[in-house]
Amino acid sequence: MEPILSHLSFQIKENAIDSFMDEIKTPVTDPVFFSVGLPNKKLIPKKQLQAMTNMLFENDPSNLYNYCSSKGYDPFISTISAKETIAENFIMVTNGNTQGFDLVCRMLLNQKDSFAMEAYTYSIAHSAIHQYNLNAIEIPLQQDGMDMDVLEASIKKVPIKALYIIPNAQNPTGITISLEKRKRLIDLAYQYNFIIIEDDPYRELLFDERIPSLFELDPLKEKVIYLYSFSKIIAPAMRTGFILAHPVYIQKLEQFKQIQDACTSPINQMIINNLISSYVWPDLLEQQKNFYENRKKITQHFLINMHKKYGWLSSDPAGGLFYWVNVLDGDVLEWMKYAAASGVIFVPGKAFSLNDVTNTKIRICYAYCNDDEMMKGFERLEESFVKWKNNVQ
Amino acid sequence: MEPILSHLSFQIKENAIDSFMDEIKTPVTDPVFFSVGLPNKKLIPKKQLQAMTNMLFENDPSNLYNYCSSKGYDPFISTISAKETIAENFIMVTNGNTQGFDLVCRMLLNQKDSFAMEAYTYSIAHSAIHQYNLNAIEIPLQQDGMDMDVLEASIKKVPIKALYIIPNAQNPTGITISLEKRKRLIDLAYQYNFIIIEDDPYRELLFDERIPSLFELDPLKEKVIYLYSFSKIIAPAMRTGFILAHPVYIQKLEQFKQIQDACTSPINQMIINNLISSYVWPDLLEQQKNFYENRKKITQHFLINMHKKYGWLSSDPAGGLFYWVNVLDGDVLEWMKYAAASGVIFVPGKAFSLNDVTNTKIRICYAYCNDDEMMKGFERLEESFVKWKNNVQ
Repeated sequence: MEPILSHLSFQIKENAIDSFMDEIKTPVTDPVFFSVGLPNKKLIPKKQLQAMTNMLFENDPSNLYNYCSSKGYDPFISTISAKETIAENFIMVTNGNTQGFDLVCRMLLNQKDSFAMEAYTYSIAHSAIHQYNLNAIEIPLQQDGMDMDVLEASIKKVPIKALYIIPNAQNPTGITISLEKRKRLIDLAYQYNFIIIEDDPYRELLFDERIPSLFELDPLKEKVIYLYSFSKIIAPAMRTGFILAHPVYIQKLEQFKQIQDACTSPINQMIINNLISSYVWPDLLEQQKNFYENRKKITQHFLINMHKKYGWLSSDPAGGLFYWVNVLDGDVLEWMKYAAASGVIFVPGKAFSLNDVTNTKIRICYAYCNDDEMMKGFERLEESFVKWKNNVQ
Repeated sequence: MEPILSHLSFQIKENAIDSFMDEIKTPVTDPVFFSVGLPNKKLIPKKQLQAMTNMLFENDPSNLYNYCSSKGYDPFISTISAKETIAENFIMVTNGNTQGFDLVCRMLLNQKDSFAMEAYTYSIAHSAIHQYNLNAIEIPLQQDGMDMDVLEASIKKVPIKALYIIPNAQNPTGITISLEKRKRLIDLAYQYNFIIIEDDPYRELLFDERIPSLFELDPLKEKVIYLYSFSKIIAPAMRTGFILAHPVYIQKLEQFKQIQDACTSPINQMIINNLISSYVWPDLLEQQKNFYENRKKITQHFLINMHKKYGWLSSDPAGGLFYWVNVLDGDVLEWMKYAAASGVIFVPGKAFSLNDVTNTKIRICYAYCNDDEMMKGFERLEESFVKWKNNVQ
């Protein structure tokens, strides 16, 4: 069979994380997944979601079962407007940041455009690179975020159309970009005329005070398109998030959203609207932050020990779900096989970069697994690392 | 402000139905909407949806709150597989047929491809025409469906890449394509190598026995991609449907779905899976069919009367939600203003064709409005029609 396909179909590739994970088989019956970048199950507000849903069915608001505007359910947009202190015409609801990013790409990008991003970054950006056959420009990360000198030098040589950035508790490195660099990035966007796509699902999971977003810092709101998702703080299954952008962009995005799926599930929008408007919500967020901060400390304790014993280097995430670890030499794809045999799974750094040649980095998600799995996972990491190193020598 | 946009952004246009409806203002406090192509509110299985949702929260299946595979929630795919008697690797879940159609277009179409469709048809097809700057080929409809001689003659002159068809109770005409023409269309697809996109949301709302779908009739399952939605028989707000296609296509569609929104809300998939597997489901469908058949008869009675008095011609829909009416002369866009002033809204035929020059046709949806609104709507249609005709002369 010779399928009939578009150019895009030939360019699109499987997600890099998935393709690495597809190959991993573990013989162990109780594997520990440091690979899964998901919120911890304990933190899902199950009772509240059930109560909100029942309240919704009982109240039976008009249009509960209907389509809503592609922009989103009006009262939900009002809530977002109040919480984000931005006018309603700057807001569109999405099915989470995956859709937000896809819609923004459809609106902005042509084949072969130049597109900058952090090296390393979430593989969603690489999907766009493949699909649109983009000229990908990876900008190195420093402790305080993207290297702005390298970025500017690069733009001077090759102008870019858009830049993708995860500003807070970045996936995979855990890095948060500083206020100074945020301001400089916006200046660059105005000076060299490109769009910043700000993907910010971890902002509520920062352990310290939040720095203003690039969108908040953008004086004219013309250069930053802001993506927010409730997947990390409520539940991925709700498939709900929003975009903040200049109304000129929101109008276009709304047209693409209408074509793409008419609207985000209005029932899910109503449930989330009720939940984030309820008096329990700040407490629920606080619980999450404390939980992840505790998890981070436990992981840090382990990683300091590994640094002493084996020289591992690691980030010091100021929030979010991830630790980024550099084991200095060897190919971690080899280690992964030993790790899987021992019953622990992580994601290799290669999954987060188009040009990673070092092969010494891994991402550990400390959020998802159960409390009793954490120490077991750490033991298996060390055990498999030692086996790998012994066998390599 | 000079926005940064893709080529697609310049090509995409507002939905034709919306742009006609945007202009309609009615001074009446109780307008009757024959324009709204939605299921009747009375038929939404509210109690069952609430019960299924609560059962779900109580049972708390693992992964209830998580992402699921982009292909869909496994038990839901199993249910679809059993009901459609097709292997699971031919199935992908979508957020309804809007998304199904968009994903298929992304997979199949390049700019300027040739694309055939019924004249008249649902405006979703025209959105694709604009977005991909396609060579649009409109094939006239006969009482038993698309004119196959015209189609074949057209293909001989200009080969097509894909064809969009609503086989049952077509929107807007209510026409159902005959078995003979279905078979011939599939023969043509193999002979001239094009894909048939079969959009079938009304199949459960046929008053008589269902003819096999084009997908069922396709011997090798290589030429038909089948789109199904639960929006018309459960609720649009659930945003759930599915695609049936050859596994070669399903694999590609899954990649696009992953990029587009990761997955359809797993909670909504689980609720619908429970509902359509429950013993009440066949009764609920039967109720819907009976309700719409009764509505059709009431509308038919009115339209026979209008035929006698004013010569109106109308279709005889074998199911679905729509009557297609031809008032023979004048421009119905003018009538719309009188109708809105009288408090009744319909959609002009122009919204369903790229090249409609007659301007004498309208679509009446007999499904959505309340029982007590039906007769009022008919009175206002006649009253406004008479006023229009008197003023024109």
